[in-house]
Amino acid sequence: MSGSVSIIGLGPGNVLQRTPQADQALARATDLVGYGPYVQRVEAPASVVRHSSDNREELDRARHALEMAMQGRHVAVVSGGDAGVFGMASAVFEAVEHGPQAWRALEITVVPGLSAVLAVAARLGAPLGGDFCVISLSDNLKPWPLVLRRLALAAEAGFVIALYNPRSKARPHQLGEALEHLRACLPGSVPVAFARAVGRPEESVRLASLAEADAAWADMSTLVLIGCAASHLIPRPGGGAPWFYTSRKVEAA
Amino acid sequence: MSGSVSIIGLGPGNVLQRTPQADQALARATDLVGYGPYVQRVEAPASVVRHSSDNREELDRARHALEMAMQGRHVAVVSGGDAGVFGMASAVFEAVEHGPQAWRALEITVVPGLSAVLAVAARLGAPLGGDFCVISLSDNLKPWPLVLRRLALAAEAGFVIALYNPRSKARPHQLGEALEHLRACLPGSVPVAFARAVGRPEESVRLASLAEADAAWADMSTLVLIGCAASHLIPRPGGGAPWFYTSRKVEAA
Repeated sequence: MSGSVSIIGLGPGNVLQRTPQADQALARATDLVGYGPYVQRVEAPASVVRHSSDNREELDRARHALEMAMQGRHVAVVSGGDAGVFGMASAVFEAVEHGPQAWRALEITVVPGLSAVLAVAARLGAPLGGDFCVISLSDNLKPWPLVLRRLALAAEAGFVIALYNPRSKARPHQLGEALEHLRACLPGSVPVAFARAVGRPEESVRLASLAEADAAWADMSTLVLIGCAASHLIPRPGGGAPWFYTSRKVEAA
Repeated sequence: MSGSVSIIGLGPGNVLQRTPQADQALARATDLVGYGPYVQRVEAPASVVRHSSDNREELDRARHALEMAMQGRHVAVVSGGDAGVFGMASAVFEAVEHGPQAWRALEITVVPGLSAVLAVAARLGAPLGGDFCVISLSDNLKPWPLVLRRLALAAEAGFVIALYNPRSKARPHQLGEALEHLRACLPGSVPVAFARAVGRPEESVRLASLAEADAAWADMSTLVLIGCAASHLIPRPGGGAPWFYTSRKVEAA
């Protein structure tokens, strides 16, 4: 009996932002594998086995999924947002690369999902009007000086910058340091958005200039979006929140 | 009567990759506005008015949508992929910013879609395992030297690079120049993918090393994904296409 692994992006959390392709892949699963809150998010018949694990156990989780597939199970590995963007896809292929040769013959598919950066951008207006980059602020898998270097190069390039994993209990000081670092490279007037749980009932969004932005406004579930010189806010009448907009045009320096 | 503008990302083309949120927003539309092939992609009752236009008329199209909304119509402005990533969202807010004050009071919403970079990455394996950037290679809205500069900075940062709009009839030479530029900054062994129409029947994917990559393999519908030093291919038994994988870990230099 031939099993499979399907690595599925559930989108940001609102079920209206999950694709039919993800639903189809979930419907085929005999087993659900992932970080607890994501596994809980999936509705499935009682016959489907749920294997929830703690965060930061990606590689063990990936190996477990591959082992079950070798036994003929159809395993859905779930991530929030897109599984390819700081989700489980890379962990599964890392396990494959260093695992038994037989794993390479398994049916492994990745089903894309709406990553937070896209949902947040839509909620704000059009902050990604030009070129942009996506950076994880966590230094669990890369050295912190490299994160700072990437931020400086991204600012120099004029990219809008989306920061994932801006802050956690184990890393309370990094976002403040990152913002300080960016203030040295970018105008203080550049708009910054702190967007949390976008599309879900507990959604919150806070806008500020880079000069005023305060790292305390973020937690691990926040996406921080930092504009570029071509970004600004469009005010609205009647007290509505302004739109965060980045011009498509960039003039020659 | 109060109209609205909804700017909707249709996803890469496979209807299974379009969100229910996009379907709901489309169902409310009295008018569809967009580049011809995207407008054609939407199924709608005969009563819905289709306003197809040529490519490169984004701003006129945006103004037309806003004018109709002022007359009480519910206008869906459609883009392929995500409307916020080189799609119509930024053009609509540009029109708002320079248009009549009354446009700012309109109900304008953006509905995110699966951008090509996510669909292509899922198709290839896990090429976006780390930080990445998204760059349009078109110089219609920014100077070409800036594009080259951004490529060099992105390579220096160690970003995986997704190139949108790599080539057109009016710009046949830029992708070749961009690849040449990147060969001076990155190892020739870095994997490069040319992915066209992913998720659609005419899908084609070609993998090569940066040293071998040939700009002639791309057209305007191709997304070119360029790895970083942490990217490589995982070969598979039985002649299957290798997986394109970027390690999550980056060691200190």
